[in-house]
Amino acid sequence: MQGTFDPETDSIACMAQGDMNMQPHHFTRHAVGDEDVAFDVTYCGICHTDLHFITNDLGFSQYPVVPGHEVVGVVTAVGAKVTKFKPGDKCAVGCMVDSCLECSACKGGEEQYCATGSTFTYCGVGTYGRCPTGEPTKGGYANKMVTNEHFVLKLPGNFKMAEGAPLLCAGITMYDPLVHFGAGKGGKRVGIMGAGGLGMMGIKIAVAMGNEVTVISTSPNKEAASKAMGAKHFILASDADAMGKGAKSLDLILNTVSAAHDISGVLPMLAVDGRLVMMGVVTSPYTVPALPLVFNRAGICGSLIGGIKRTQECVDFCAKKDVYPEVEVIPCSAVSDKLKLLSVKNDQIKRYVIDIGNTMLK
Amino acid sequence: MQGTFDPETDSIACMAQGDMNMQPHHFTRHAVGDEDVAFDVTYCGICHTDLHFITNDLGFSQYPVVPGHEVVGVVTAVGAKVTKFKPGDKCAVGCMVDSCLECSACKGGEEQYCATGSTFTYCGVGTYGRCPTGEPTKGGYANKMVTNEHFVLKLPGNFKMAEGAPLLCAGITMYDPLVHFGAGKGGKRVGIMGAGGLGMMGIKIAVAMGNEVTVISTSPNKEAASKAMGAKHFILASDADAMGKGAKSLDLILNTVSAAHDISGVLPMLAVDGRLVMMGVVTSPYTVPALPLVFNRAGICGSLIGGIKRTQECVDFCAKKDVYPEVEVIPCSAVSDKLKLLSVKNDQIKRYVIDIGNTMLK
Repeated sequence: MQGTFDPETDSIACMAQGDMNMQPHHFTRHAVGDEDVAFDVTYCGICHTDLHFITNDLGFSQYPVVPGHEVVGVVTAVGAKVTKFKPGDKCAVGCMVDSCLECSACKGGEEQYCATGSTFTYCGVGTYGRCPTGEPTKGGYANKMVTNEHFVLKLPGNFKMAEGAPLLCAGITMYDPLVHFGAGKGGKRVGIMGAGGLGMMGIKIAVAMGNEVTVISTSPNKEAASKAMGAKHFILASDADAMGKGAKSLDLILNTVSAAHDISGVLPMLAVDGRLVMMGVVTSPYTVPALPLVFNRAGICGSLIGGIKRTQECVDFCAKKDVYPEVEVIPCSAVSDKLKLLSVKNDQIKRYVIDIGNTMLK
Repeated sequence: MQGTFDPETDSIACMAQGDMNMQPHHFTRHAVGDEDVAFDVTYCGICHTDLHFITNDLGFSQYPVVPGHEVVGVVTAVGAKVTKFKPGDKCAVGCMVDSCLECSACKGGEEQYCATGSTFTYCGVGTYGRCPTGEPTKGGYANKMVTNEHFVLKLPGNFKMAEGAPLLCAGITMYDPLVHFGAGKGGKRVGIMGAGGLGMMGIKIAVAMGNEVTVISTSPNKEAASKAMGAKHFILASDADAMGKGAKSLDLILNTVSAAHDISGVLPMLAVDGRLVMMGVVTSPYTVPALPLVFNRAGICGSLIGGIKRTQECVDFCAKKDVYPEVEVIPCSAVSDKLKLLSVKNDQIKRYVIDIGNTMLK
């Protein structure tokens, strides 16, 4: 307990102070402005990015860190100018809570590529006036949030809250490149590199869109799960013969691998005009031979989450198609242990989701 | 002189036998089939690729090599089913003389990406029946050619033959990615890496399309020529400060550099959804950091010449806009010396074009 606490207005959060032992943290969210939506958080997914910020891997964490950018909840109050939400509505917040909304990226609905930088849901710094200016943002490992309407997603009534929380980061991270790179209407040959949390979402969403999915993984034990989720083919990345037989067989490969790895074996699998799309923030550079690119007009691109408009499309699509990740719901008291587990091996085909609504540390 | 020679039907060529000393070579082109166009070659450009095949860098040259894939001439005879040409028409042949014409790439007008491989104009092997089956193809360093109509380009009446020959390889190599990657209608910020033969074409064509062109070069002495050709900006690749100031400033960068080189400094210059497109067949791999790609959905792609339909567009566009490379017309007797010069330093902002029609070695 820190200071006095008013349960009507104040927030309780899981807070990190530089290690993976999460502690209770009491603080007050900013007042609900005219364009703000206040909501009680019910569930929040654990994303691997949370770990990077908890342990300050990227060097700009400001403690206390309140992680969480896969946040779902129920609206409790709205500002005077809010039109999309009313109390009682299911809602969600993803990786961003502000951006300039004036640059061409923002105007094009791609706030994640904001020319002056979007404000992350946690460990961002309020810059554009829709979050307290100069203050570090705090995420969804907390029982309350107050967010500008533009950055709040509407969840359909039938949305599965616990299962659906990871759609706000893992889901849109796969949905956006599938749509952007031409697989949104199905009929493409889509490869998914890595069958972990992101890979799983990629398989399910790509299949639901009507694509033929090939999983490329280093783990032979992922074959059964991949096929159960709808993948048609499974190629073991270490099987050079199988990789070779797949030459020019894929229109789009989504690479979810987040550790340093070699991509030279996978490039020849791209068909003419094929794209290998990287989501992983891999800090060591890739080694890229030119010839498989030149002789097929193929390419390597990056992709970062997705804009608000497309995130809304993503949750609507997944709710309609009943596409949700495999999740394990955990209480707040288990978060520290699961973070430590993830920090050792990030190879789960399921996603942890914290039951914020019922188990918040006091 | 080799054997007997009938000047009405036989060809005289510049031939390589494994070194850069070109010798006369007498041979007979195949008979004019129903779909073939026979033409007298008037000019042929010297492409750096010619050197690779003359010296067997790629390992599949079959001697004698008759190079040349920037070929222009005048039709002398046409087969019974030819509809596009009549004797006296100006015509041209580029890098390909056959392909399957049945795969999706060929049907889409992208014969250069033929699923089973297009037949190169020289050092290819007749495969699909439109060139003598199993025989090595012979290029445009020769006074006569016979080519299937599909692979012959129509040249407008006002086409400048000597200046225009390099459009058939260098021109289309730049024109195709400019159109394919969205700069064909102008209004884009286009970077050109390398201001040599390809770079020069890229500057001129991109400017003629209505784009704002920035040249990125390691040679300060290329600035004046680049700007004279229409480039608006010139950045010295070694000037880290200038490169840094160009962050996110380019929608499309065409990389014409054909030797091993570092691209990590240029990637941050790509705007959101920007593309760095490689034309060079660089055999040592690139080192590619992921972050500039991920945080801008930027990408690195390859591009190989262009299909027949777009090559026709290219020559029509250049003739209409009066866009031609800087060339030096040389006699056949000078080819060996110029090849040796190019093999030492391929840094010319002009292109050599051989006056085949008037100076063929006997």
